[in-house]
Amino acid sequence: MIRVNPNYSKIQANYLFAEIASRVKAHLGANPGADIIRLGIGDVTRALPRACVDALEKASREMGADSTFRGYGPDYGYDFLREAIAREDFASRGCDIAPDEIFVSDGAKCDTGNFQEIFDTAVRVAVPDPVYPVYVDSNVMAGRTGGATDGRYDGLVYLEGSAANGFVPDPPSEPADVAYLCFPNNPTGSVATREQLGRWVDWARESGAIILFDAAYEAFIRDDKIPHSIYEIPGARQVAVEFRSFSKTAGFTGTRCGYCVVPRDCRAFDSTGAEVPLQPLWKRRQSTKFNGVAYPVQRAAEAALSPEGKAQCKALIDGYLANARLVAETLEAKGYKCFGASNSPYVWFDCHADSWEFFDRALKLAGVVVTPGVGFGRAGAGHVRISAFNSRENVERALSRLAGIL
Amino acid sequence: MIRVNPNYSKIQANYLFAEIASRVKAHLGANPGADIIRLGIGDVTRALPRACVDALEKASREMGADSTFRGYGPDYGYDFLREAIAREDFASRGCDIAPDEIFVSDGAKCDTGNFQEIFDTAVRVAVPDPVYPVYVDSNVMAGRTGGATDGRYDGLVYLEGSAANGFVPDPPSEPADVAYLCFPNNPTGSVATREQLGRWVDWARESGAIILFDAAYEAFIRDDKIPHSIYEIPGARQVAVEFRSFSKTAGFTGTRCGYCVVPRDCRAFDSTGAEVPLQPLWKRRQSTKFNGVAYPVQRAAEAALSPEGKAQCKALIDGYLANARLVAETLEAKGYKCFGASNSPYVWFDCHADSWEFFDRALKLAGVVVTPGVGFGRAGAGHVRISAFNSRENVERALSRLAGIL
Repeated sequence: MIRVNPNYSKIQANYLFAEIASRVKAHLGANPGADIIRLGIGDVTRALPRACVDALEKASREMGADSTFRGYGPDYGYDFLREAIAREDFASRGCDIAPDEIFVSDGAKCDTGNFQEIFDTAVRVAVPDPVYPVYVDSNVMAGRTGGATDGRYDGLVYLEGSAANGFVPDPPSEPADVAYLCFPNNPTGSVATREQLGRWVDWARESGAIILFDAAYEAFIRDDKIPHSIYEIPGARQVAVEFRSFSKTAGFTGTRCGYCVVPRDCRAFDSTGAEVPLQPLWKRRQSTKFNGVAYPVQRAAEAALSPEGKAQCKALIDGYLANARLVAETLEAKGYKCFGASNSPYVWFDCHADSWEFFDRALKLAGVVVTPGVGFGRAGAGHVRISAFNSRENVERALSRLAGIL
Repeated sequence: MIRVNPNYSKIQANYLFAEIASRVKAHLGANPGADIIRLGIGDVTRALPRACVDALEKASREMGADSTFRGYGPDYGYDFLREAIAREDFASRGCDIAPDEIFVSDGAKCDTGNFQEIFDTAVRVAVPDPVYPVYVDSNVMAGRTGGATDGRYDGLVYLEGSAANGFVPDPPSEPADVAYLCFPNNPTGSVATREQLGRWVDWARESGAIILFDAAYEAFIRDDKIPHSIYEIPGARQVAVEFRSFSKTAGFTGTRCGYCVVPRDCRAFDSTGAEVPLQPLWKRRQSTKFNGVAYPVQRAAEAALSPEGKAQCKALIDGYLANARLVAETLEAKGYKCFGASNSPYVWFDCHADSWEFFDRALKLAGVVVTPGVGFGRAGAGHVRISAFNSRENVERALSRLAGIL
């Protein structure tokens, strides 16, 4: 008799964005043709950079001739892309990451969801609260938790964010073997300083733990003192894996490309407590269960790292950052305390209400979709995330419509 | 202390194709510039169909304008593609599969590797021998086996193929909860009749099991009596999941698109033995750990199902099938017993030697890469797989070079 994975029944409610989509659908059902402005899900809205489109088209044409056609690519990504990433994303910031430590994938959601597979089921997992739900749900599915009480799973270590710590939690005092960190943070937009990340690296080195560092939003950092990569912290290579994405950097949410970095000297431990390198396990996982990213997409990602591509990406991000600042200024003028916005596409604020109640009001009274903070965890209660991924015009229209409920 | 998944240490040797790649690399290192003809890995070599290239280019241009740009797509695939699949791949053969029972992915390797996640760790897994290694390795990684003895894992049920059963095994007499089947088969090229598949569906219905049916090669079937889909068998909807791929059908190995079918009424059981539908678990798995397929790639897949695309795909496959027949005729003329070739791109034959020994001879003496049958399991010993995925000219050259060692 084929029994299902019993851990799935522990998962609470729907995946946050599915719940939002379903409430929006219900609203549109009741109000056909309603004009909705979406500042909820963190999805880019503006065209791909020209350099990326040109590369996509060129590579598509190559696929149309026997002499330039490409079949299966290398499991871990084409060298042309891995080399461009090593040079532009790491060497340029003084990080020593070799091309063969970079594993190209179809996105950071997949990588952050899949990476836990190479750990023992018994490892103790620490997650931020509020948190990007994938870190939690993928570990619940894998059986690393008990059931949930008041939205928190038994067996997980929650790293609470708050106004007091600026939504940058310190390492836990209770034991944990792996910690998911995300800076610039989704959902709060907070960034971590070199000193704060240094405390995390020290903690991982001292406690034999691993940091899974999600840097999907690094391209939004404009403050020179804020690290873009965990590998800017001395000692991080041995204890940290980093996830990156072209989704927010180059508008690839519908084009699908990301990568993760697993340094050769990144270590874990076997059941006897002996040190083992982590990289061969990830290589094995990927070569067994993944078959690489479309060749045209890898060419488009490479183009995003060219001089023209980088300038075009920067212009895109500057536009989103300007939107975020406008949102934060408008909210702050109304007396709302805001986080994020400066080095992030997200504005996170105390909405002076229940988050889903604010969500419903914004949807029904202003036709604006935001994201309820409590959907990211208990510590997000009473907060809302607004995404700056939209046109300037739509952000201005949304703010003017929201004026009535703020 | 971060402990690694202990099941990874049970996995035997390298992933087959990685081992082949490494032997070829060593040969090329010792013989720089050697002219190698690759009939090993099942990778297509001819250009994408024109309809697909045109669709890729058009969709790439759409991504370059704000008004036609697409961000995150639906988690399970765009409706335009799911509807085309339901119509062209299923309704056209009398199978009742709705668009919302189709889950678009980046390939059948990912789907066949990931699908086991939604089952209990304790389920008993049956796999063919010889077998596509992903079915086995993904279950070893998930902890459903003990260690290996003589290349076989404790806890797996092996369904032996042989010349006697034409490499189409019957359901096992010992208990099993899930069986992986693949027809037309990789690696043996064998196909299953309606009666043979009917026995499998009966077995699954009677024993409360699930069939994971890999139909990645269905487009090579030319014999009208052979089913293309498990859903051509009455009663299969409740007990079978089907995997399909555009890789071999439309030359998408480097473009990446596949899908799986999970009918609404496909059932499994919870820990109390109560029936539960399987589809919500797969939806949850995919929406949590996957983010959809690139929009241009989905448009290219849709184009493969258009009238022009279908004609172009058929012409591609006819070419590969003609190659396969030439290989089989040549081998049979030399007294080798062959399987496959008629409804499959693969020729599987008894090589009258150890398979790796034949592999090394073909590589070193003829400069031809084949696949050693034993790499697919113990029952593949003494056999070799030759892939027809190459130009006619290369297949002819390879056969003439192999003449000396046959």
